[in-house]
Amino acid sequence: MTKPILALTTGDPAGVGPELSIRAAMRDDIRETCRLVLLGDRKVLQAAANLVGYQGQFTEFEPETPPQGLEIIDPCHLARFPEPGVATAAGGRAAFAAIEAAIDGARAGTFQGVVTAPINKLALKMAGIEFPGHTEVFGERTNSPAFAMMMYSEKLAVGLVTCHQSLASVPGSLRRERIVEVGRLLADSVGKIRGKKKVRLAVLGLNPHAGEGGLFGNEEGKTIVPAIADLVSAGVNAVGPIPPDTAFTGNKLKEFDAFLCMYHDQGLIPFKMLAFDEGVNVTMGLPFPRTSVDHGTAYDIAWKGIASESSLLKAIALGARLAADKT
Amino acid sequence: MTKPILALTTGDPAGVGPELSIRAAMRDDIRETCRLVLLGDRKVLQAAANLVGYQGQFTEFEPETPPQGLEIIDPCHLARFPEPGVATAAGGRAAFAAIEAAIDGARAGTFQGVVTAPINKLALKMAGIEFPGHTEVFGERTNSPAFAMMMYSEKLAVGLVTCHQSLASVPGSLRRERIVEVGRLLADSVGKIRGKKKVRLAVLGLNPHAGEGGLFGNEEGKTIVPAIADLVSAGVNAVGPIPPDTAFTGNKLKEFDAFLCMYHDQGLIPFKMLAFDEGVNVTMGLPFPRTSVDHGTAYDIAWKGIASESSLLKAIALGARLAADKT
Repeated sequence: MTKPILALTTGDPAGVGPELSIRAAMRDDIRETCRLVLLGDRKVLQAAANLVGYQGQFTEFEPETPPQGLEIIDPCHLARFPEPGVATAAGGRAAFAAIEAAIDGARAGTFQGVVTAPINKLALKMAGIEFPGHTEVFGERTNSPAFAMMMYSEKLAVGLVTCHQSLASVPGSLRRERIVEVGRLLADSVGKIRGKKKVRLAVLGLNPHAGEGGLFGNEEGKTIVPAIADLVSAGVNAVGPIPPDTAFTGNKLKEFDAFLCMYHDQGLIPFKMLAFDEGVNVTMGLPFPRTSVDHGTAYDIAWKGIASESSLLKAIALGARLAADKT
Repeated sequence: MTKPILALTTGDPAGVGPELSIRAAMRDDIRETCRLVLLGDRKVLQAAANLVGYQGQFTEFEPETPPQGLEIIDPCHLARFPEPGVATAAGGRAAFAAIEAAIDGARAGTFQGVVTAPINKLALKMAGIEFPGHTEVFGERTNSPAFAMMMYSEKLAVGLVTCHQSLASVPGSLRRERIVEVGRLLADSVGKIRGKKKVRLAVLGLNPHAGEGGLFGNEEGKTIVPAIADLVSAGVNAVGPIPPDTAFTGNKLKEFDAFLCMYHDQGLIPFKMLAFDEGVNVTMGLPFPRTSVDHGTAYDIAWKGIASESSLLKAIALGARLAADKT
């Protein structure tokens, strides 16, 4: 079996991304699952290597050349070394250049998947770059007709029908087609990760008690119930609408493989409670898998060599699993 | 110290309420904390006593007479014995009569608090009784200007600014005064229960990431931040707006004594995850404390003698604690 080639965007250069990327890339267990290519400024990555004690070589990535040491691509070319823990326009530009290069390479088929280290929104803003989130950038730049965010851990998998928008705008933007779309993506992704043909999908209601028969809102009857019927017709083992407040309690957590949530906090409150620091953010519906760490740039501890790479390792492992059938 | 007198409404006669009420009233530990008066149909309570093996006597409650056996009040006078597990108009009327008698007695000062066993909404509807929920009935029948629901357990206490209404209607009904009102009630109640002068109150945002600086909704800046300032001015140690998705994770659960939530599922998803089967529903802001079990009539196991009274015991214990300073 050929190992998938994954692009790892090393994130904001003033944050923890570069050191975590080197730590991850050095590991034998990671190198067994994928061929990892680090995208970032060469000077920055060399400094991060010195920090974490990597003494091997860096080589420019060449698809046809067997890997030697850590393979990198530098689309950044920073003029000066960034100050740790400080957001700068140059840092924002460098982080974004790596993301663009990763997307281009994945679209061209050079990479079978992309893993992203944390960026800093302020730095991107200083660089004049509109950046609603990795998810949106990947979706738009690949012209993907349907994409959505999943948070995945062994304990819990949630898919989000709506995501980064005000709570007031959620009920109006719930559409039957969108629920079906995200439900199919979620069932498909979780099935692939867990090696299951048929996943049990819990579809949550929007309102308290899932509307209590229309007493507390009618989105369940109008939109969610028809969407569940569509999902079932499409062969998805979908059940609902489930009252949100008991959806994540004992029996249901065991009974269902994945939970389709109508809005950000409906999914992320339980996810962060059960899988804090273990979560992987997955963009579903792209032409290639994209996974991400579940934390930010952690400027306060950046470049001290004390940040933990555990979330990044999980993101890479999941990316490799999802990309395996693309090789 | 005089023990508080608590009215226990024994709930729908076809459900688990009567048998659980007898089980609870028989216990020495309960009798040490309060004087418990059971409100329900005498025949039904006698049958429940036979079911669970209570062989002592029943006496009509007389405030000035020292308690002998189990003390009851029968405001129901059911014509016939109800069939277990079946909703009937007669059962709904009986359950509601007990609630009315409890409220009247508490308003008159006969009872220092009320504990409620589960009712059946269908039975109440069959009896032609409009019953949005215990909370609303107690609030309205006591003309309380401000009341709100708290879910309490040793692990977590949440207060709800809005409760049984559609998600779409939540943003529009968030008012600064209401947030302050429920925040004060919550700080006060939890302080009383835990014997703390100053509780640390987490005030949650409404939107993802608490609005991310206005990007995902402006209720935080417009309503919640000013309400927090009002709470602080009123001497409450309130902090926020806290991003909802990380509010219930490790450190914050330890740091805060209570969580002020903007809507039903924001509070009840985490509460049921952490304290399923241990929760007590408390109505705050009444002239007397009212607590309730956290489960329904459980028709499927009613009158089999197998239902557990543990939730009711917690509700009585908490009611007794809250009522202690009313004696």
